[in-house]
Amino acid sequence: MGYNLLKGKRGIIFGALDENSIAWKTAQTVHDEGGIFVLTNAPIAMRMGQIDELAKKTGSQIIPADATSVEDLDNLVEKAVEILGGKIDFVLHSIGMSVNVRKGRAYTDEKYDFTAKGWDVSALSFHKVMQSLYKADAMNEWGSIVALTYMAAQRTFPDYNDMADNKAYLESVARSFGYFFGKEKKVRVNTISQSPTATTAGQGVKGFDGFISYAEKMSPLGNATAQDCADYTVTLFSDLTRKVTMQNLFHDGGFSNTGVSQEVIEKF
Amino acid sequence: MGYNLLKGKRGIIFGALDENSIAWKTAQTVHDEGGIFVLTNAPIAMRMGQIDELAKKTGSQIIPADATSVEDLDNLVEKAVEILGGKIDFVLHSIGMSVNVRKGRAYTDEKYDFTAKGWDVSALSFHKVMQSLYKADAMNEWGSIVALTYMAAQRTFPDYNDMADNKAYLESVARSFGYFFGKEKKVRVNTISQSPTATTAGQGVKGFDGFISYAEKMSPLGNATAQDCADYTVTLFSDLTRKVTMQNLFHDGGFSNTGVSQEVIEKF
Amino acid sequence: MGYNLLKGKRGIIFGALDENSIAWKTAQTVHDEGGIFVLTNAPIAMRMGQIDELAKKTGSQIIPADATSVEDLDNLVEKAVEILGGKIDFVLHSIGMSVNVRKGRAYTDEKYDFTAKGWDVSALSFHKVMQSLYKADAMNEWGSIVALTYMAAQRTFPDYNDMADNKAYLESVARSFGYFFGKEKKVRVNTISQSPTATTAGQGVKGFDGFISYAEKMSPLGNATAQDCADYTVTLFSDLTRKVTMQNLFHDGGFSNTGVSQEVIEKF
Amino acid sequence: MGYNLLKGKRGIIFGALDENSIAWKTAQTVHDEGGIFVLTNAPIAMRMGQIDELAKKTGSQIIPADATSVEDLDNLVEKAVEILGGKIDFVLHSIGMSVNVRKGRAYTDEKYDFTAKGWDVSALSFHKVMQSLYKADAMNEWGSIVALTYMAAQRTFPDYNDMADNKAYLESVARSFGYFFGKEKKVRVNTISQSPTATTAGQGVKGFDGFISYAEKMSPLGNATAQDCADYTVTLFSDLTRKVTMQNLFHDGGFSNTGVSQEVIEKF
Repeated sequence: MGYNLLKGKRGIIFGALDENSIAWKTAQTVHDEGGIFVLTNAPIAMRMGQIDELAKKTGSQIIPADATSVEDLDNLVEKAVEILGGKIDFVLHSIGMSVNVRKGRAYTDEKYDFTAKGWDVSALSFHKVMQSLYKADAMNEWGSIVALTYMAAQRTFPDYNDMADNKAYLESVARSFGYFFGKEKKVRVNTISQSPTATTAGQGVKGFDGFISYAEKMSPLGNATAQDCADYTVTLFSDLTRKVTMQNLFHDGGFSNTGVSQEVIEKF
Repeated sequence: MGYNLLKGKRGIIFGALDENSIAWKTAQTVHDEGGIFVLTNAPIAMRMGQIDELAKKTGSQIIPADATSVEDLDNLVEKAVEILGGKIDFVLHSIGMSVNVRKGRAYTDEKYDFTAKGWDVSALSFHKVMQSLYKADAMNEWGSIVALTYMAAQRTFPDYNDMADNKAYLESVARSFGYFFGKEKKVRVNTISQSPTATTAGQGVKGFDGFISYAEKMSPLGNATAQDCADYTVTLFSDLTRKVTMQNLFHDGGFSNTGVSQEVIEKF
Repeated sequence: MGYNLLKGKRGIIFGALDENSIAWKTAQTVHDEGGIFVLTNAPIAMRMGQIDELAKKTGSQIIPADATSVEDLDNLVEKAVEILGGKIDFVLHSIGMSVNVRKGRAYTDEKYDFTAKGWDVSALSFHKVMQSLYKADAMNEWGSIVALTYMAAQRTFPDYNDMADNKAYLESVARSFGYFFGKEKKVRVNTISQSPTATTAGQGVKGFDGFISYAEKMSPLGNATAQDCADYTVTLFSDLTRKVTMQNLFHDGGFSNTGVSQEVIEKF
Repeated sequence: MGYNLLKGKRGIIFGALDENSIAWKTAQTVHDEGGIFVLTNAPIAMRMGQIDELAKKTGSQIIPADATSVEDLDNLVEKAVEILGGKIDFVLHSIGMSVNVRKGRAYTDEKYDFTAKGWDVSALSFHKVMQSLYKADAMNEWGSIVALTYMAAQRTFPDYNDMADNKAYLESVARSFGYFFGKEKKVRVNTISQSPTATTAGQGVKGFDGFISYAEKMSPLGNATAQDCADYTVTLFSDLTRKVTMQNLFHDGGFSNTGVSQEVIEKF
């Protein structure tokens, strides 16, 4: 089932928790397209999720790694190359968490230890992943690295809290590292700015249901689902998008360029 | 050769002049991916080019149409649906021409008849194409419409002249019409902002060679070629990108997000 | 009343119709700041408005000019320099009109004669104004040219119709001409992207009241009024902003960078 | 010598080191415009600079504060209100430092302790400053907060290193906090994206002279100087720009919207 778009390609997929995860759907879709990969997640997230099931379905191995730990990441990269039998062609970074949000701190009442932790997990981890890959020279030429982000990096959504700032940092890392990875290794780096998605993580955010419904009405094609995102990610991993790099790509049914929709304005 | 990404899909391709054209490469690549289409170009462009050869290679028919003529476009849409045996799934608009540039008029010395003609051909034609498709209800759900553009719509490149303003208009048409085409027909509309490309048309522009070389040095992955653009376009026509709409997508090896490159700064 | 920010400066103000006009408020504010100017509008708009009253209050002369006529504009520039006793320091372009909107044509049912007329009046006129000034070498060094625009140039507001595309063209003209005017004459060119404003012209647009109310709720500081815009324009005409050029400046109480506000999301 | 634009206004100015500093020039210009303020800087920076001289010239008091210390900032805010005799109207944040840059670490070889320190000083400090002001309810309505940033937040300049990511975070903080400060307190928050400026800090960066020269040639009006920036900042502190908020404002002689200039392209 698929087009064989990723036949012969090897990858690392971060962040699959359960079947609602974008990373989960992406792993399945990559598998359908002929790609092979290792799965990874933080030890704690692995205990909560069903990643073993996904590994079985896709014939993948799991390598636990805390994405804030350089040591863990270096180990992950080394093992992945070993297990997959060659350098890496694609990487998905789907990691994000705000301690301030979890603890119910308002944006105007941040606890800065929480802020630093969330930044490390959600944003700096992307740099760390790439630096591990870069230093180990573990990416194949014309490889593709993708991280997931959200439009709050450009415009304020009040409940998104400090994740907005983390995503802005993450997107900047994509551009900055994309420059060097492009020049030195011919590897592309992009972010996908995805519609709000009813993942298990997303559902924890205050007012998330109302927000999903609002986004649906603001998007001429409706919200992009986790499966839509998996499909789109596959095109970015394929050889058909080799010159797309350092971009933040909105994948949102048109929300980002809709000022207001008819349905929304009718409420006023 | 290909992934069958466009199997069963029908389209219209504007602007294939000769084998250097992006539209030419796209037609070949779409053909390789299993899509069928009609080719179209202005009567005058057809006399200059070798479109018959392309038609033969890809098993396509040619329908001449002046893209500024609503009558021609209505006829084209009707004929295309008839010839292809069903509604349209994809459209490529690759049309652009500035009379001011051709006649050597500086941007600060425009002749406004020329400006109006160039705007009609390069920018308004995209609206006309979509309005003909929309009114005839000729697009299938989840169809995809793509126009080619250039970053001069965002930043000034002095020799690009009034084509910059035309491209800004074209990109706005993609957003505006994309809203209605999305809401009403579930059709997506995007523009690809392509690296400067050594097409036969491009080569006519003053200082074009120096510019290609500059862009090459500013792009971490190098300039995207016409073939690269054809590949990327195919992903946007495929079912894997259904929720991408109203976007201007930079396809340029990273130029658009590179402030300066090492090679360029070294000249200063 | 005022800071003398524009003492000794001479200008041309387009588009004052009545006391609701942004151009009207700007003229008054410029006058309060010590600037002198000529007022201009299309002959037909002048018959409808009360521009004579404004001229009296500000000690200004009126020179009628159709902003689509190069002849009229050349005459305007020549006369303005003569009347004001020297070259021009500031120009406000506040002109816009869509025939499609006036005639009730939907965006997907444009009549292209109307489109062309609206483009000429709303967008190309800005190029024509600048080209007349440029050719006559009528701007002083460090002069400042401002045109008013709207965020529909970036994101779709369905009722804004083809004015969105016109504003995108206008903003591109600001960048393109700004490059040459900067290099050759040290003149800056910018656009102000203003909140929806209850001008006499604006009030004619379908659903405008609902839209103003929506924008008010989306803007953390509320909508910018016509007087706010006049104040901001004065800063851009002053010597304190000499290095701001080729920019589109959002003046909208924060709407442009608000993804959603608490008040709006609460309706969902 | 000024316009009295800031008569009766009280402020806090961060980051004046010596007479090359933008903050230094801003302090002088604010003083000329009738504003009063306290000066602040990190204790270590104060030992290196000549801030006493500036304080004397402008009749200001100095309150040392480490901008990463909430305690110091809370104290600063309290003292500033006390010294100035009322709530604050304007704040300038001009703080930035990358330990990776100082220690000569490449972007692809970051030491993450350094990265975290630079992020705290350069980016998070802006949040901390605003949170201290917000919690103390120390800003007057229609107050204005400005931070300085650089275009590397949007596009990669290879030598700018992790400061690019810090500036992206900083600009996001301006939007995020600007939303809440606008809604709750009618305070505006913006960033100025300034030309590369030959400050004492800037001069330390590798290849800085070549870069200044490149930027000069890419900017139709030339680079904005520190004095230009001071002038522009004053307009943003004034009552004439009350509805500008959550914006990143390029102040760069047009560089940001110039794709290439004639002088640069001629080298290719």
